[in-house]
Amino acid sequence: MQRLGILGSTGSVGTQTLNVVDQHPGEFSIKVLTANGSMELLEKQIERYHPEAVCLVDEEKADALKKKTRGNVHILSGYAGLDEAARWESVDTVVQALVGNVGMKPTIEAIHAHKKIALANKETLVSAGAVVMPLIKKHGIELTPIDSEHSAIFQCLKGENVDEVAKLIITCSGGPFRGRKINELNGVTKEQALNHPTWKMGGKITIDSATLMNKGFEVNEAMWLYDIPAEKIDVVVHPQSIIHSMVEFVDGSIMAQVGHHDMRIPIQYALTHPNRITLDVPPFDFVKAKQFTFEEPDIDTFDCLKMGMAAAREKGTVCCVLNASNDTSVEAFLRNEIEFLDIQRTIRDVVSQHHNIPHPDLEDVLKADEWARQTTQKILTQKTEDRKKKR
Amino acid sequence: MQRLGILGSTGSVGTQTLNVVDQHPGEFSIKVLTANGSMELLEKQIERYHPEAVCLVDEEKADALKKKTRGNVHILSGYAGLDEAARWESVDTVVQALVGNVGMKPTIEAIHAHKKIALANKETLVSAGAVVMPLIKKHGIELTPIDSEHSAIFQCLKGENVDEVAKLIITCSGGPFRGRKINELNGVTKEQALNHPTWKMGGKITIDSATLMNKGFEVNEAMWLYDIPAEKIDVVVHPQSIIHSMVEFVDGSIMAQVGHHDMRIPIQYALTHPNRITLDVPPFDFVKAKQFTFEEPDIDTFDCLKMGMAAAREKGTVCCVLNASNDTSVEAFLRNEIEFLDIQRTIRDVVSQHHNIPHPDLEDVLKADEWARQTTQKILTQKTEDRKKKR
Repeated sequence: MQRLGILGSTGSVGTQTLNVVDQHPGEFSIKVLTANGSMELLEKQIERYHPEAVCLVDEEKADALKKKTRGNVHILSGYAGLDEAARWESVDTVVQALVGNVGMKPTIEAIHAHKKIALANKETLVSAGAVVMPLIKKHGIELTPIDSEHSAIFQCLKGENVDEVAKLIITCSGGPFRGRKINELNGVTKEQALNHPTWKMGGKITIDSATLMNKGFEVNEAMWLYDIPAEKIDVVVHPQSIIHSMVEFVDGSIMAQVGHHDMRIPIQYALTHPNRITLDVPPFDFVKAKQFTFEEPDIDTFDCLKMGMAAAREKGTVCCVLNASNDTSVEAFLRNEIEFLDIQRTIRDVVSQHHNIPHPDLEDVLKADEWARQTTQKILTQKTEDRKKKR
Repeated sequence: MQRLGILGSTGSVGTQTLNVVDQHPGEFSIKVLTANGSMELLEKQIERYHPEAVCLVDEEKADALKKKTRGNVHILSGYAGLDEAARWESVDTVVQALVGNVGMKPTIEAIHAHKKIALANKETLVSAGAVVMPLIKKHGIELTPIDSEHSAIFQCLKGENVDEVAKLIITCSGGPFRGRKINELNGVTKEQALNHPTWKMGGKITIDSATLMNKGFEVNEAMWLYDIPAEKIDVVVHPQSIIHSMVEFVDGSIMAQVGHHDMRIPIQYALTHPNRITLDVPPFDFVKAKQFTFEEPDIDTFDCLKMGMAAAREKGTVCCVLNASNDTSVEAFLRNEIEFLDIQRTIRDVVSQHHNIPHPDLEDVLKADEWARQTTQKILTQKTEDRKKKR
């Protein structure tokens, strides 16, 4: 019985992890669940899975939940509570499915507590790969990726020698705006950006998929996860998203992982690796799928991907700045405060102002993060004011 | 240094094996080479690779070669010579790249001599899988496939547990007559049948690819190689032949092996497995490839595939009969004695006359083989006579 702590249990990956758990009675038990503010769903999860502890980052809601549950479950709160949840003693495997940079500290806590980590949150490695990966290695932590692309690469590397890799090939759906040139992205709406063609995901990551920043992050994450130089990581647009990613080896052979758009496949594999157990996924029908197509990514239009790939080559605090500036910009876009193209323009502006520290420690990362958020906010506020003046 | 014996060194796989050897000085040495009758090419190979022994199955040519080489190399001849070549003492790995059923006995010789076997010749397993595979297991022989489809499956299964396989998916180019209905196959010529759309191969296997018998054989071979029931083996038409085959696992994840049409990739992998070494193959360009398409195979038109799949489900001597009858029919077609459709009609006729022995020994297999060749020849002779009368 594998004992799980799910950080972010009310989100998209969190609920799908619980669906995987539901399918295998006796295989997993739930010890810890955490949510940001979704108290009602968390309550239902408590009733169903009887965790030892839960955390609500929102302190007020945590207080409310405490009153309702009357001591049946240990209620943690705030970011300190999230850290405690990450190192909760009876947990074997931490499913880290948090959104954004808040995942960084709990991941480090889980490492120090010698947990196995199934990682869905990509910002942790993008921002702090230089800090987290040496810790992972030092403590001999088993880190398995949940992201479909990285799970694909992980599966393609099974039984293989990383020294024999010629190239990682990360596939990219192209997002809802694939094929558009930059002038065709003027004035696209939040609703259009949230309408992802192949994957159903949370809001933040869906916008990142529309700007292709998500793919830029994935290049960074892959670099850290598999210790492969950024120069050996390619991105190819594959609109059907059936090939989840590939690995080309020095002998010219390419391994690919293929299948339905169903996050439960990589989630389950992250938990059961190196074994596979049944999952209620219908067999993939290639005849019905008819065709897989491939295109070059348009990095001139989608500057976020270009910046992401450049940051991976540079490494250092610029990766953290990229992520923090993106976080802040996407939040503003989701609040309808800025235009879609303002996201990439603002990030480009912030990144160009940053003095990169190539080999940062955690303090450098946190400082760069803070600086990037403030700088981004300043630029965004200026943009909003300029716009008001124009009217 | 891996010491090789190449059975069938002047054929398509044989010469490509030597190309792989050429690329890695110091990795391989050539101890034995064999050919059917291509004396001139074999002579050149002797000069270049200095084997200890060679075999020419054609006895007259072997005598001629003896006179020319004047004792510099041990010259074997006939089928007995082929058997001796297969068990040649200084050889570590036998590359079995013979054409047709003649591969059966040398394979058994190589097993008894405890060689590692890289197998390109599919008829051995199709005809005698029931006899050969138990021997392979008994003697703990390492058997690696060279056929691109089986190499793909072999690579997809790397690090995996065969018990967790849901399905093998063998891809099929569809051959030169893909999309034609049976009435559109009347009167197609040998030249049309030899014009394979994606792979450059020998004559016999190219005709087998046109009738789809090749794919029927591959289902049988995969069943034996991976101990997977025929019911769990699917065939899907993929005209670009870039995905060489796939494995679907119980968790819904599918692993695929992808790449150029270059037999040197699976040949080399069969020799270097589990490692990979560089090969002068250009990186595969997905953007240039543009698309992969998939179709259902038309087993009503291509009856050879239907018979091949049925034989795999039945097992036993019927598989050997299928192969022997196909051998005889294809030979007649290549001599322009019969029509393209006569191949599948004749085999259907022979198979329907056969009383299957479900668990045959070697004697049963050899008897069934002989019976099938004679019966096929009788039917073909009758057909030719009928045709003459008509004129």
